[in-house]
Amino acid sequence: MKNVYLKNTPLGQAQEKWLDKLHQIGFIGSCSTRTVSVDDSLGLYTAAPVFAKHSSPPYNGSAMDGIAVTFSDLAQASEANPIILGPDRYLQVNTGNAIPEGFDAVVMIEDVQMLPEGKVEFIAPATPWQHIRTIGEDIVATELIVPEAHKIRPIDQGAMLATGTIEVAVKIPPKALVIPTGSELIQPGTQPSPGQIIEFNSRILGGYLTEWGATATRGNAVTDDPELLKKAIHDGVGKHDMIIMNAGASAGTKDFTGEVLAELGEVVVHGIAIKPGKPAILALVDGTPVIGLPGYPVSALLTMRLFVKEMISLFLGIQTPAAPGMTATMSRPVHSVMGVDEIIRVTLGRVGNNLMCTPSGKGAGAVMSMVKADGLLTIPSGSEGVGAGESVYVELLKEKADIQSTIVVIGSHDNIIDVIANQLHTQRPLVKISSAHVGSMGGIMAIKRGEAHIAGTHLLDETSGEYNISFIKNLLKDTPLQLINLCYREQGFIVPKGNPKNITSFRDIAENQFSFINRQRGAGTRLLTDKILADSKIASNAIIGYNHEEYTHMSVAAAVASGSVDTGMGIRAAAVALGLDFIPITKERYDFIIPAEFLDDPKIIKLLDLLHTDKALHNKIQAMGGYDLKDCGKVMYQQ
Amino acid sequence: MKNVYLKNTPLGQAQEKWLDKLHQIGFIGSCSTRTVSVDDSLGLYTAAPVFAKHSSPPYNGSAMDGIAVTFSDLAQASEANPIILGPDRYLQVNTGNAIPEGFDAVVMIEDVQMLPEGKVEFIAPATPWQHIRTIGEDIVATELIVPEAHKIRPIDQGAMLATGTIEVAVKIPPKALVIPTGSELIQPGTQPSPGQIIEFNSRILGGYLTEWGATATRGNAVTDDPELLKKAIHDGVGKHDMIIMNAGASAGTKDFTGEVLAELGEVVVHGIAIKPGKPAILALVDGTPVIGLPGYPVSALLTMRLFVKEMISLFLGIQTPAAPGMTATMSRPVHSVMGVDEIIRVTLGRVGNNLMCTPSGKGAGAVMSMVKADGLLTIPSGSEGVGAGESVYVELLKEKADIQSTIVVIGSHDNIIDVIANQLHTQRPLVKISSAHVGSMGGIMAIKRGEAHIAGTHLLDETSGEYNISFIKNLLKDTPLQLINLCYREQGFIVPKGNPKNITSFRDIAENQFSFINRQRGAGTRLLTDKILADSKIASNAIIGYNHEEYTHMSVAAAVASGSVDTGMGIRAAAVALGLDFIPITKERYDFIIPAEFLDDPKIIKLLDLLHTDKALHNKIQAMGGYDLKDCGKVMYQQ
Repeated sequence: MKNVYLKNTPLGQAQEKWLDKLHQIGFIGSCSTRTVSVDDSLGLYTAAPVFAKHSSPPYNGSAMDGIAVTFSDLAQASEANPIILGPDRYLQVNTGNAIPEGFDAVVMIEDVQMLPEGKVEFIAPATPWQHIRTIGEDIVATELIVPEAHKIRPIDQGAMLATGTIEVAVKIPPKALVIPTGSELIQPGTQPSPGQIIEFNSRILGGYLTEWGATATRGNAVTDDPELLKKAIHDGVGKHDMIIMNAGASAGTKDFTGEVLAELGEVVVHGIAIKPGKPAILALVDGTPVIGLPGYPVSALLTMRLFVKEMISLFLGIQTPAAPGMTATMSRPVHSVMGVDEIIRVTLGRVGNNLMCTPSGKGAGAVMSMVKADGLLTIPSGSEGVGAGESVYVELLKEKADIQSTIVVIGSHDNIIDVIANQLHTQRPLVKISSAHVGSMGGIMAIKRGEAHIAGTHLLDETSGEYNISFIKNLLKDTPLQLINLCYREQGFIVPKGNPKNITSFRDIAENQFSFINRQRGAGTRLLTDKILADSKIASNAIIGYNHEEYTHMSVAAAVASGSVDTGMGIRAAAVALGLDFIPITKERYDFIIPAEFLDDPKIIKLLDLLHTDKALHNKIQAMGGYDLKDCGKVMYQQ
Repeated sequence: MKNVYLKNTPLGQAQEKWLDKLHQIGFIGSCSTRTVSVDDSLGLYTAAPVFAKHSSPPYNGSAMDGIAVTFSDLAQASEANPIILGPDRYLQVNTGNAIPEGFDAVVMIEDVQMLPEGKVEFIAPATPWQHIRTIGEDIVATELIVPEAHKIRPIDQGAMLATGTIEVAVKIPPKALVIPTGSELIQPGTQPSPGQIIEFNSRILGGYLTEWGATATRGNAVTDDPELLKKAIHDGVGKHDMIIMNAGASAGTKDFTGEVLAELGEVVVHGIAIKPGKPAILALVDGTPVIGLPGYPVSALLTMRLFVKEMISLFLGIQTPAAPGMTATMSRPVHSVMGVDEIIRVTLGRVGNNLMCTPSGKGAGAVMSMVKADGLLTIPSGSEGVGAGESVYVELLKEKADIQSTIVVIGSHDNIIDVIANQLHTQRPLVKISSAHVGSMGGIMAIKRGEAHIAGTHLLDETSGEYNISFIKNLLKDTPLQLINLCYREQGFIVPKGNPKNITSFRDIAENQFSFINRQRGAGTRLLTDKILADSKIASNAIIGYNHEEYTHMSVAAAVASGSVDTGMGIRAAAVALGLDFIPITKERYDFIIPAEFLDDPKIIKLLDLLHTDKALHNKIQAMGGYDLKDCGKVMYQQ
């Protein structure tokens, strides 16, 4: 096919090759400079060292509120022999006042006695220059205030102004142009038709370019036409210091970026052994670096981080700011392919003494997985992965304080958790919820491994008809805990609006060969499905799609809404949220398992308090449909 | 005197009292909100949760470049039994293309054979919905994108735009007014006369307020007149969410801030047991918080950090962002007074495996000590200090990367070090120098304790007439090291321009009772002074000011420039820098001691390379006066 030159260069090699090329073309430290008022210089980088023009303080001044004297006048002063000076031999001074010629010490106001007729009594000698800030005590003229390539902080502004510098030469940030490409792109604010994609990638890329210190411009979207692409690149080169193309770097029939760049200039690297991000292009056109990024948002962003973040620092001649990070413990193994540098999205949560790191959403296009991720874990090409319990260094995508105050909820998904998360977040102290949807069983196992504060679970014991308790007794028998009710909720068939196929039972589905979407093994809803099938004596292979698994109620609802299936089992709230219809089958109990050790954690106390008392929260939940909150917050069992 | 109500409230109590008061007046979370375009929302805080308006992807699309098919058509396909479809039964799709009704799987382009007449051959079956991104696979309509009080990142902007949100409600930052007060203030750009102070404090305070998330306005400077102060406060209240007064909080005759605030409103706290910062005021005027800060820049800034940083977060209803910090080892003990929360400026440097924390400059007015400090160490009121070798947590004032790449130079001061620091900083890889001036002996002891990469030293052995080596053999006998020459330099008397008192020897100084300023014990220059006095048979008590000690050549020169002394001993470059005259006495050798373990550290290699080869650096040093670089970079001794 096309773009046969797409290779698989190891990341280290690609970086070295690219760095060599940037050196060759004189890109390193090649930014221009300009002079700005010190008042406008906050956050910019100095283009030259700044030295003190004059000293600070610029005169000998009093360091105290007191009385300036000539120290030799007080040489004999003592309590037994007080010395009294008239107004011609002293001067009352406030902190900062100049000390005139002839005076060479200050006595604190508390240590003197004011007498009539402007006389003052001293009962102790003074040492020369006591309580006087002499010229240059803080900063001496000619002293280096800040070196070149220093990011100007408010305190630096103060030191410059204090020593006579009111203008400062600063480095001009690189001008980066982001060119979105693709005939399918439409602008935000329009409802997309099938095949159309909202052009949001350039906003993400532009935003990070800005955060990394560039001046980012978003170009107009260019359709997949080689001539228009060439024109867009030509228009950008020369006016910008770097150009970011998104996308067209892959090997599809409409991916022209590689071929256009090869025609206009020099493709230094095309195809890098990274995941996500493989088809990235590093090229030069008329001396301007042009980076071709993959189309998927997460691939594009992570590839840009690997190359462009450092380019901005190189251009400015500054040290690349270190991304904040933390050391954490893997909660479960993560596998990676040898020979590929893989970047994994992870969530972090402090559970007891452990900062647990859990691999989270995947997928090159999964924007929401990047929104939710707390950090990034890099697995180098020489490694096959990381084992559970291993210590890893995670680059943070969120504030450290947010991670420390996160409640980790793992287990079955319910839309209520999102609502609670928001309600909690609007209250003080601020607490966040990180929820991972791995089904009821997955939640119980996370509690067992000490990885979660809370597991959400709705497991029906077929023999006793009781929810959750027998599973706890069986699987968590050594863990002191409370089982606290969140809600009762309706489970049933999620069907398109109006239920066009008139589905009311699994028998209908089996007999009419309707397509079904299932939940994953270990999910409470999956167990419910299996129980009903068994009760109705329907074989699972009689249900088309029984093996097609999704992980959340909302994903099941989304599949129905997309038309890819006729129905699936889920909660009413999921059907209501997407404007679908709902055929109720049963009511089930959904509880939180909370280990006793977390019950006096202020975060958890706050959460439970909310469940008990927050009327607004209860109203919001009721409005979602299908919930009964009669036992919300009640302890159903403890051990 | 005045302001007798100035108390000494413990910090914890002051914070609690103030927080209670802020709760009472409804300050917490009281910010207004406004709606902005998502494109303009970067870095702002959400005022409400944002939910997905529609799903993303909004349609079923191809996840690959390939051929869309109906999976049941390929049920029987195998290598032995290829299935061939005509153009009516398949559709060629690129990544992202919509999958029309009727198709339900995509086969990768690599896995098919294109045949003549638009036919395609398949040799394997497909699974339903393979390589198709279904509606909502990334984000399902109604899903929570970001909660309230979330700081918007580029990725969040992307997720909002992808799901139909183009405007977002955000919190409006608090409007903070900084009112500089004091009759002595003049604007930057004017040469200050004695008693005048450049008004730079409000720039420092305004800059940090901006960094902490407020919108800061600097008011005009107000002279020390109670009526004008009242007017300035009145004009600010109502139009701003908080007012910062700087200064007038102390007990001087012109410190009116406390009394004016008591008259206009309620003084909640005046006087806090913190160092620096004691006289701070926390007050309310017509429901607006007014903070009265001490006048000295460092006191003002550190007090503002303790109260106003959190107030900004409280007003916005967000978590106060954690200041970055690091754990380090104390290089020497630091003492603190019980009952006072003390904030100590420190420098940090990684020497070998140790991140060493060393207390640095003091003084409430020492702006330059804040510029140079790497971090802040808080010693709580219940502690008497921290011992050497103890582990401490340091809040960073600089980038972590800067600290990791810092060469720690401790010992004798020479102006060349500043010049090298700047020269190094402009080169790649970026390396910084942190220099602490504790005299030659102090430098040797720092090497002994493993706290420094380099000690600068010029110690003359009176018996041998040799520099440095005998001291090393004596004090560092177990440390493999190199002694590398930096320069030879002229030492002599620093005198005012024209040498008005015609000083040429210590005999002149002793006989004419001229005043002298000495260097501290352990400084090489001090040893030189003592040697000359001994050689000339002059008793040290015959020299006025022999016991008055300064720590650097520049401080000695500054004392001469200020007129507080007639002369002092120092290097020619210090005299030249301040436009003073210089009477040479001797030429001495100044060397770097570098332990062998650091000689292959890339930072040190870079530095030595610079000494050997950088012509521009040599020219700059020569221009400073009094230096001989004939042995610069040469190894004088090793062990």
